[in-house]
Amino acid sequence: MEVIESGVTAAKGFLAAGVEAEIKYQNRKDMALIFSTTPCRAAGVFTTNMVKAAPVLWDKKIVESSPGVQAVVVNSGVANACTGRQGMECCEREAAIAGEALGIPAEAVLVASTGVIGVQLPGDRIEKGIRMLAEAKSDSRDAGLEAAKAIMTTDTVHKQIAVKFEIGGRTVTLGGMCKGSGMIHPNMCTMLAFLTTDANISKEMLQKALSRDVKDSFNMISVDGDTSTNDTLLILANGQAQNPEIHEEGEDYEIFCEALHYVTTFLARKMAGDGEGATALIESRVVGAASKEDARILAKSVICSSLTKAAVFGHDANFGRILCALGYSGAVFDPENVDLYFESKSGRLHIFGGGSACQYSEDKATKILSDPEVTILCDMHMGTEEAVAWGCDLSYEYVKINADYRS
Amino acid sequence: MEVIESGVTAAKGFLAAGVEAEIKYQNRKDMALIFSTTPCRAAGVFTTNMVKAAPVLWDKKIVESSPGVQAVVVNSGVANACTGRQGMECCEREAAIAGEALGIPAEAVLVASTGVIGVQLPGDRIEKGIRMLAEAKSDSRDAGLEAAKAIMTTDTVHKQIAVKFEIGGRTVTLGGMCKGSGMIHPNMCTMLAFLTTDANISKEMLQKALSRDVKDSFNMISVDGDTSTNDTLLILANGQAQNPEIHEEGEDYEIFCEALHYVTTFLARKMAGDGEGATALIESRVVGAASKEDARILAKSVICSSLTKAAVFGHDANFGRILCALGYSGAVFDPENVDLYFESKSGRLHIFGGGSACQYSEDKATKILSDPEVTILCDMHMGTEEAVAWGCDLSYEYVKINADYRS
Repeated sequence: MEVIESGVTAAKGFLAAGVEAEIKYQNRKDMALIFSTTPCRAAGVFTTNMVKAAPVLWDKKIVESSPGVQAVVVNSGVANACTGRQGMECCEREAAIAGEALGIPAEAVLVASTGVIGVQLPGDRIEKGIRMLAEAKSDSRDAGLEAAKAIMTTDTVHKQIAVKFEIGGRTVTLGGMCKGSGMIHPNMCTMLAFLTTDANISKEMLQKALSRDVKDSFNMISVDGDTSTNDTLLILANGQAQNPEIHEEGEDYEIFCEALHYVTTFLARKMAGDGEGATALIESRVVGAASKEDARILAKSVICSSLTKAAVFGHDANFGRILCALGYSGAVFDPENVDLYFESKSGRLHIFGGGSACQYSEDKATKILSDPEVTILCDMHMGTEEAVAWGCDLSYEYVKINADYRS
Repeated sequence: MEVIESGVTAAKGFLAAGVEAEIKYQNRKDMALIFSTTPCRAAGVFTTNMVKAAPVLWDKKIVESSPGVQAVVVNSGVANACTGRQGMECCEREAAIAGEALGIPAEAVLVASTGVIGVQLPGDRIEKGIRMLAEAKSDSRDAGLEAAKAIMTTDTVHKQIAVKFEIGGRTVTLGGMCKGSGMIHPNMCTMLAFLTTDANISKEMLQKALSRDVKDSFNMISVDGDTSTNDTLLILANGQAQNPEIHEEGEDYEIFCEALHYVTTFLARKMAGDGEGATALIESRVVGAASKEDARILAKSVICSSLTKAAVFGHDANFGRILCALGYSGAVFDPENVDLYFESKSGRLHIFGGGSACQYSEDKATKILSDPEVTILCDMHMGTEEAVAWGCDLSYEYVKINADYRS
């Protein structure tokens, strides 16, 4: 597998664009398009929040029933959530306009929105934006990059990646982009992430691969514990790589899943590390758990703890908060048997074991916790299962961003 | 029922004290004693965290097996959690020293600690502190107040209350004190809370009343979502009011439960409003829920949402975050049918209904959200059950306190 510096336009037959549509802000790109020259099989996972944004409801229907998807239209600035019937009608109009502008059926168009909740989308600007996107679309790397930038809200960096790999003697490409930052605690999926591939894979296997993958990628990150109303992860596969169709489990499917996991994990880590106000990416690695589910619960509990997040922000080796978070996770273990380590590029430190604190250097611990990527390693000594979760520290900036998000 | 300005020394036969033992800080009281002149029936609820502090393990044993409890010794500064066998031995020694100093068996002594996790208690200072407490104990209001101050950590105000009521023609008194502030997300109980009463009530009914009560009092508050390793709620009843013993459900039991609920709710609200860095108490009131459990889950989800907490700090009527928090709570409801109101002493505002935002004045909303006590009222229109939860806003100060707690 080869990593390439590209995103959603890396795979054969995929075009993209990003334009300034002034949905909410001035002087920044805020609408994006992904377009495939041929119909795609599509799969998706969506928020489990009872309150689902209109675009989520639209996409669920299209992913389930559409014979072929060819476009995704995304806007930032306004989430089109908690917008009632008017919000749903806006999605339908968006798909119809995009279908007309791109020469495809409205049922081939997926839509996604991110931004403030409870505000209606400006229909005229959305329409103008779609026509600009249809005009601007290109299969260049730059076009993919512009799309990745246009979906950002409080993100500080765009997030994209692509990989190349071989299936049945053919080169297959898989690329993706996402945005995260706040209201990030995905359950079934994440804020907004879009993957494109030219793999030839059945719709059933595509959905299976995606649903399996999120459990250890996007579902293992959290910025603030708030599961959004708009979480959407979509993958489009247009088959243009012409590999023998993947229609069952086996070697080809595993190669595809491995590439998929590389891409999703890369994007998920990026999202966690660029959480609102974050100064550090926190990786919580749990080993020796009694079951895979326990490992996931324990790893995620650590990165969700406000106190642990604040301690990392302060470069303070306050390991008690980590034990506390493991303890209330719901998983069963023996606290006397847990080993705790801090790890970063500056080294590794054994902090806690045998029921009490180890003799460690506070200076060394502070140095490790001052690095931009910090790993908290917990060995539960209960079995052999492992899991990794990703989060970020809790800073003044998070509060600042969210105390005044709408203005 | 009459509310009196007092605390743990209000009920007959209860003495208290607070002293400076220099456990961690200088020039502040950090050890407290509650003492009953006669043996008490005791009941308690404790943290559900898998990682339980040594004092929690000690108290669970004593509450279950001791024929009569007469004293509680509390220290702040060091939590005696994650301290292994040495921490447990420290509890045993503490009880033995207190028993000797007070002329009661070690098995009549409960202990509690709050503060930093992972550090051993200074045995010599604890011993000295206990002897000072035994010397200083008094049944005065001031003594109760000193005890309430001595158990504070990052609390900004002490928290105590007492009430008088009649059972079987006798005046019964119930008082209590607690401390909260950080690592507050009780599950089965809260950080540290101590109640004293002269009611004559069987041990079985005392435990029953306490266990029933916490579901709608201490278990309905959250400051930061972190369930502590030390959560302890204890009640001591010495029977000195000489009312006919409450040994079954009935009118007397209900009168007792009502008084108990008044006291616990008062203390729980105080704890939420004085959360670390808090500038406002947030009350989340859910009505029209399908079941009591749904009502509790929904109410608690709102006050736990970091984004909602930050919005209240910024006086921003970002109601989408509240709907989002209701939505991921796990309770089933129809988002199109939810009515949302903001309420405070400045008035009441209908914010959301029928699936989209109401026409409301942002100025009025900001005014309401600027008050020190803000109620978020959610009518689910799914049934008739209600619940209330209490939390606080999320401020820069919370991050500041917790980024650097140990230094």
